[in-house]
Amino acid sequence: MSSHEGYAASFQDIQRAAERIAPHIHTTPVWQNATLDNLAGQQLFFKCEMLQKTGAFKYRGACNAIFSLPADVAPNGVATHSSGNHAAAIARAAQARSIPAFIVLPSNTPQCKIDAVKEYGGIITMCPPGMDAREAACKRVIAETGATFVPPYNHPQVIAGQGTIALELLQQVPDLDAIVVPVSGGGMISGISICCKHLARGSQQTSDPQQQQQQQQQQFPQSPLVSCKPGLKVIAAEPVGRQGRLGDLTWPCVRDLVAGVVTVSEAEIVDAMRHVYERMKLVVEPSGAVGLAAVLTPAWRELCAHGGILHGCKKVGVILCGGNVDLGALGLWDSLRRASVDTL
Amino acid sequence: MSSHEGYAASFQDIQRAAERIAPHIHTTPVWQNATLDNLAGQQLFFKCEMLQKTGAFKYRGACNAIFSLPADVAPNGVATHSSGNHAAAIARAAQARSIPAFIVLPSNTPQCKIDAVKEYGGIITMCPPGMDAREAACKRVIAETGATFVPPYNHPQVIAGQGTIALELLQQVPDLDAIVVPVSGGGMISGISICCKHLARGSQQTSDPQQQQQQQQQQFPQSPLVSCKPGLKVIAAEPVGRQGRLGDLTWPCVRDLVAGVVTVSEAEIVDAMRHVYERMKLVVEPSGAVGLAAVLTPAWRELCAHGGILHGCKKVGVILCGGNVDLGALGLWDSLRRASVDTL
Repeated sequence: MSSHEGYAASFQDIQRAAERIAPHIHTTPVWQNATLDNLAGQQLFFKCEMLQKTGAFKYRGACNAIFSLPADVAPNGVATHSSGNHAAAIARAAQARSIPAFIVLPSNTPQCKIDAVKEYGGIITMCPPGMDAREAACKRVIAETGATFVPPYNHPQVIAGQGTIALELLQQVPDLDAIVVPVSGGGMISGISICCKHLARGSQQTSDPQQQQQQQQQQFPQSPLVSCKPGLKVIAAEPVGRQGRLGDLTWPCVRDLVAGVVTVSEAEIVDAMRHVYERMKLVVEPSGAVGLAAVLTPAWRELCAHGGILHGCKKVGVILCGGNVDLGALGLWDSLRRASVDTL
Repeated sequence: MSSHEGYAASFQDIQRAAERIAPHIHTTPVWQNATLDNLAGQQLFFKCEMLQKTGAFKYRGACNAIFSLPADVAPNGVATHSSGNHAAAIARAAQARSIPAFIVLPSNTPQCKIDAVKEYGGIITMCPPGMDAREAACKRVIAETGATFVPPYNHPQVIAGQGTIALELLQQVPDLDAIVVPVSGGGMISGISICCKHLARGSQQTSDPQQQQQQQQQQFPQSPLVSCKPGLKVIAAEPVGRQGRLGDLTWPCVRDLVAGVVTVSEAEIVDAMRHVYERMKLVVEPSGAVGLAAVLTPAWRELCAHGGILHGCKKVGVILCGGNVDLGALGLWDSLRRASVDTL
């Protein structure tokens, strides 16, 4: 079994990432909810990445990329042109390493996201909207500063960092039958599927968990013990109309290592968000609820029916991957100010 | 030191309540948040009771009252006429003991609260709005069924049950200088202040923590070890215009055992809610955020200034006491459905 197999990151890269970022990230909790289990007809194990620093899983990849930089390169800093969770993650991870983060933001970036980057000490360059202008502005900043570019998902260290979610989740719940992962650019599902495929193959070679763990411990004596069921499957959850954003490093992982794809509508995403707010008392952003939305679709139930690839699936890991949503822009605080608190 | 001192519940009642309800409740986590610490200028320890079963601390008191019922009385069930968190708590606790819960709800109760009571198997009687009609309807139900009335706060076992919050919090963070408690009817602050006053006196009599714990262990060999700083102070946090709802059992506790009161405006409550959603990614209801609102007021800062009763206060326990807010009635899900998920 080769450790790399032509993908952007290997299982060993993910283990190294876990060790590298451990001092900087939160080990996020895994929660269960009886009502949602009833709704899904399965046991759901929610990996709460909205409780990660910066409110999203993106901090893992950003930390791994930034703490991997060689000591002679790091002082020039890092640069990116994402306007979303990646920008805040890069700013905060750079702050943790005490190096500058140059963040290019399009002029239509919501104020709350500008504020998050500022709060973490990011050095902001505004640019016109549109990918061409963003890339051009980022190139100029890099030419001027010598900063290292860290893209949001199509990057080996970012992929390895996101893969630590699976390593952590399988330590917390070793006997999952499936893990459902929201997909946009594919960084998270690439890391998670590389990790799961490696562990599932290890489980097939020897069915003795103790022996598996010994093998692994010999390779990485400091690594925590982790194993999974041989049949563990990774399922992609995608919002409808959002396909085709994968990069050249993430596409091969989705193509080869992911067992199936479930597409969800925007209405299904909003319903899933409502369940997380009302039942789990957690704040989740729309893209963060896509995994739960998927397990509540008829398509998911078909996969679990007789003859489906998930037949017999009982325990499902669901990644709730972020909680950064501007509830003020949705009118929530104004509605509350108008309502008498007494009547709520 | 008498164990009762004329209040509705004693420290020993709270210890017995903790043992009684332990199999049924969640031990809720205590979370910290660096940004909110900076905002407050103190270390805040958030007791997350929105993560309690039924989404509010009320389940503790309801469980203690219901599991205290003698075996010959319990089968007739329990009754109450609250339309809020207490109704859902009573319904679910009765379900846990497999006895009926008769819940009188005024006809203007929001649908979501009716649904919660139904979900937990409560037997609902609707009545016209107004306290007189509620009380009359509840009396009729009790006359017909022989059910035991469990009021929302003015009740010894409810008070003892809510006091378990303090017992748990002080096991999790033994060196708090103050605990800030939202007050409406006063059940929660009564239980918490009885618990803290007892422990603080114990700490004064002997300054050796090991000796304290030995004393306590002799009395209650199964009880977990718990102690507090001798100067620990309980502070009431009240929404402006909401004073004067205390009962004859809760008023003496607030009068004698609470070190101070901080009043907060509705705008301050909404700001505190926003901090909890944005920073902690937790859903909190308005009354649940009153404690955080209090520690962010100028009045709180004055209490902590030189000469104030909280001078030198560094570690503050803040009870986030509930998370049941109908975000749909505030328009959140409609706003989300209108917004393209892609733009959020």
